[in-house]
Amino acid sequence: MRILLTNDDGIQAHGLRVLYKAFREAGHDVHCVAPVTEQSAVGHAVTIALPLRVKEFKENGFRGHGVYGTPVDCVKLALSALLYEKPDLVVSGINAGANVGVDLLYSGTVSAATEGAFMGFPALAISYDDFNHEGLTGEHGSYVANLVERLPLDNLPHKCVLNLNFPNRPVAECRELRICRHTSAMWEDWYDQRHDPRGRPYYWLTGVIPPEKVSADTDRALLTAGHVTLTPLRFDFTDYDLIQSLGGSLE
Amino acid sequence: MRILLTNDDGIQAHGLRVLYKAFREAGHDVHCVAPVTEQSAVGHAVTIALPLRVKEFKENGFRGHGVYGTPVDCVKLALSALLYEKPDLVVSGINAGANVGVDLLYSGTVSAATEGAFMGFPALAISYDDFNHEGLTGEHGSYVANLVERLPLDNLPHKCVLNLNFPNRPVAECRELRICRHTSAMWEDWYDQRHDPRGRPYYWLTGVIPPEKVSADTDRALLTAGHVTLTPLRFDFTDYDLIQSLGGSLE
Repeated sequence: MRILLTNDDGIQAHGLRVLYKAFREAGHDVHCVAPVTEQSAVGHAVTIALPLRVKEFKENGFRGHGVYGTPVDCVKLALSALLYEKPDLVVSGINAGANVGVDLLYSGTVSAATEGAFMGFPALAISYDDFNHEGLTGEHGSYVANLVERLPLDNLPHKCVLNLNFPNRPVAECRELRICRHTSAMWEDWYDQRHDPRGRPYYWLTGVIPPEKVSADTDRALLTAGHVTLTPLRFDFTDYDLIQSLGGSLE
Repeated sequence: MRILLTNDDGIQAHGLRVLYKAFREAGHDVHCVAPVTEQSAVGHAVTIALPLRVKEFKENGFRGHGVYGTPVDCVKLALSALLYEKPDLVVSGINAGANVGVDLLYSGTVSAATEGAFMGFPALAISYDDFNHEGLTGEHGSYVANLVERLPLDNLPHKCVLNLNFPNRPVAECRELRICRHTSAMWEDWYDQRHDPRGRPYYWLTGVIPPEKVSADTDRALLTAGHVTLTPLRFDFTDYDLIQSLGGSLE
């Protein structure tokens, strides 16, 4: 299989290298095009006001293209200009930090997969439920390589993203894969107001998804309970019910 | 009404000032918190690795807070820290350039409104179908101020965004408002490969939504035909059908 591999933590990130190695060992043809620098929480940002630059990375059995841009830039550029042949699958990850609920709006990891899906390819986003990636091992890579063999990649709907999350534990201790909906619970954010050494104020974002607002059958809850989760995503945002009722209101 | 006003073209953009003036003239209490610099196509990017700074703008009857950050940062910071009282409505725009189809994933304008909706407020995103904003006039502002009076803001579903687009023409020449679904047609992108004065390659994004792929009853087609369009958006990405069929595949 030909796989386009990207991420949002940057081309040197541990989670990307774990997948690169596992896919290569499984006999796949892996093309890595990933951001040169970390791009977490850039969402679906795409670079239009500036041109993109590309840098080759070759080291210890790894080869890839680093892009001075966002994850979405990487996928667009790879599929439009850098790859000579089309991939069978676009994979983004493994991200350090879960991507659940509507995190796909904020997440560079999921947005890269989404862009791959929009451009017509099966797409898989993969995240690990810890901002520290030290617990990510080759076994997570092997798990993904094995799962990819079993996914019905040729029969997925058009513009479908599969969003996979690992719980914060070794693979051997993970509970079974659950295919589930995403939580509708939202982050509750606030800003720490601090002062710099010169006394000027600045604001720093922090927040949580309140556990009591998370339904038990959703990605966030199942992940916390130790399951690997897989959520298929689609991209029709129209609220059809509201089209009807708004029509009445505005007449 | 208390209105939080933002955009992605920056606090000094013409489209934002048009709305500011129109809402003030309609008697509303307008709080403007917008990016200091242009943030087009940043999508739902949110600043987490760096702190945010705020700068006050006061000039010719305008007052607002400029944030050194993204549109989503502006809304989060406004609702969490800068506004003393909660708004009745979050408005983002008027953007120079339409936001149709899945542009909400790329669009800073729509993402700002989405963040407002996620934080529990009625939210309206407004765009104008031309990257040049010279055709945007006070009459567009008045149209919006008038529309806002007629929208059922207290009866919208939770986490709903109303996405309004103006065609590229004076208000008097616009055809009637159509409440419609978004197009599922995608941008077809490519990169111009060019060389800088030192001979090094760079890539610059360009693209179109192919008109032949756009259904006549969608935002893109109606806008091109001269209608003002309004599309209600919702944010459940789960593909429920696929949850069922994937379960069968992986057993």
